[in-house]
Amino acid sequence: MARDVILREVGLRDGLQSVATFVATEAKLEWIRREAAAGVAEIEVTSYVPPKLLPQFVDAADVTAGALRVAGLTVAALVPNTRGAQRGLELGVHKINFVMSVSETHNIKNVRRSREASLADFRDMAALARAHARRPILCGGLATALGCSYEGAVPVDDVVRYAVALAEAGADELIIPDTVGYANPALVRRVFKAVLAEVGSLPVAAHFHDTRGTGLANLLAALDCGVRAFDASLGGLGGCPFAPGATGNIVMEDAAYMLESMGVNTGIDLNALLEVRQLLQAALPEATLYGGLARAGLPRGFTPAREALAA
Amino acid sequence: MARDVILREVGLRDGLQSVATFVATEAKLEWIRREAAAGVAEIEVTSYVPPKLLPQFVDAADVTAGALRVAGLTVAALVPNTRGAQRGLELGVHKINFVMSVSETHNIKNVRRSREASLADFRDMAALARAHARRPILCGGLATALGCSYEGAVPVDDVVRYAVALAEAGADELIIPDTVGYANPALVRRVFKAVLAEVGSLPVAAHFHDTRGTGLANLLAALDCGVRAFDASLGGLGGCPFAPGATGNIVMEDAAYMLESMGVNTGIDLNALLEVRQLLQAALPEATLYGGLARAGLPRGFTPAREALAA
Repeated sequence: MARDVILREVGLRDGLQSVATFVATEAKLEWIRREAAAGVAEIEVTSYVPPKLLPQFVDAADVTAGALRVAGLTVAALVPNTRGAQRGLELGVHKINFVMSVSETHNIKNVRRSREASLADFRDMAALARAHARRPILCGGLATALGCSYEGAVPVDDVVRYAVALAEAGADELIIPDTVGYANPALVRRVFKAVLAEVGSLPVAAHFHDTRGTGLANLLAALDCGVRAFDASLGGLGGCPFAPGATGNIVMEDAAYMLESMGVNTGIDLNALLEVRQLLQAALPEATLYGGLARAGLPRGFTPAREALAA
Repeated sequence: MARDVILREVGLRDGLQSVATFVATEAKLEWIRREAAAGVAEIEVTSYVPPKLLPQFVDAADVTAGALRVAGLTVAALVPNTRGAQRGLELGVHKINFVMSVSETHNIKNVRRSREASLADFRDMAALARAHARRPILCGGLATALGCSYEGAVPVDDVVRYAVALAEAGADELIIPDTVGYANPALVRRVFKAVLAEVGSLPVAAHFHDTRGTGLANLLAALDCGVRAFDASLGGLGGCPFAPGATGNIVMEDAAYMLESMGVNTGIDLNALLEVRQLLQAALPEATLYGGLARAGLPRGFTPAREALAA
């Protein structure tokens, strides 16, 4: 049965980038294999950044190669620049996630260049990808689209402008992240409606943090707008090191539970997912994992969406 | 400026009923006074149960009397039976909250009588209230309306039937609680739409727990249906002792933050509310308080609804 919504695991990148201890490559691959087996169809497995910047990702090549051996899994990786994209092409990653910030200040703090320079980088990546034999999917991300810890509110017009610019530059899909956890459901509706109205021919995904407790409410608001792909991380592992006060992505298992209980098929087996969470906690005993489902368990009589629909 | 939505503090009842240590009457009254000063317009201050059952509420008379001295505050109390309602009438409480369960099993486990017997109790209460000089508001609650830990899913038709029965028995308003934290936004929409279609002439409030992380998403779904009153507790203090695995009410400060950031005026001063939370933590050092806003703080450039609307 086809999934109604795709939940994408980003904990291996967005989560581990804030974990100082190096996690063994085999532990990462076991996480990837087990979570894919639980039904998670897309995983952002690493980031192609210089290892001296983020030593956690020194094994990016091995993690990518191992993930590519998992049948049926869409393997994505974050790239900060053209050099990273070139590496992704060489490694044969399925999807390249590039992110620039809608807020000029955040873009400069994060990648030390202007938004226009980042856009030019993305055009170069798109040209490289087009010239490559195994052309990956190119995803353009709009960091701080829902608020910036340096600039505060970010004009919706700016989000739409850069969404169109990324689309024209060659993005196959877009993602709108709530980088610093400022989003609220009303803003989510305004921003996603405006972006979808202009670039609705491309898939537009959402990436929420649960910084102020509104993560799943924001997901619901985006779902109502027609968004069908969401980033999440097991146990809510994560947080942007450049976003003060920003904690954890939305919790994968709670997001999957909410959608499944609504009759929205995610393709995920919740019990299997909870087992992967235990594996993750064992691999990262010092990490704080979040989430309600792991504590409370499934409701009595819970029916996954695929069974509810079949009944 | 009139509030768009009323957030009602239930931590003094739903929270403290699961706290074994007796909290001093003066500490309760200070919590009430400070939270009312922060803009919370209605507080369920206690429960008129026999003190031998819940010693935490041995001071119900003093707490009620003290709360009634707070200007502008709507003082509510939970009553389990007609005897409790009689006590509320004598004490002059503004609102009497009576709860029965839509699930027969839960009602028997919780109050040791059938649903029909509970309905008969409510009719007696309504007759007592009508005969009283200072007639309080009578609120009828439908516990387990969104799922039961004994029976699993609860038929929407049953919820509607008992909602109509409570309305006919004399309820001035209704409340639909997610007693055991089973609700999801799709179910919330189905249940509230069905109830509002039948008893839409009465105000219908919602009471969510955040057991599986979906509390604020459920609030958003109910808000979309037209619900304008929600229970919450400061720091998410709470949990039903008769509902296995059910933890905390939705977090008052996160709920207020979400609504205010959406431009929905709650009348609440978020900074003042966060100070009351610190007071609560000091009074209950052993209690686990939940919530994102207290950890992350307000976003840069945050504008409360009343200022956003005035601008």
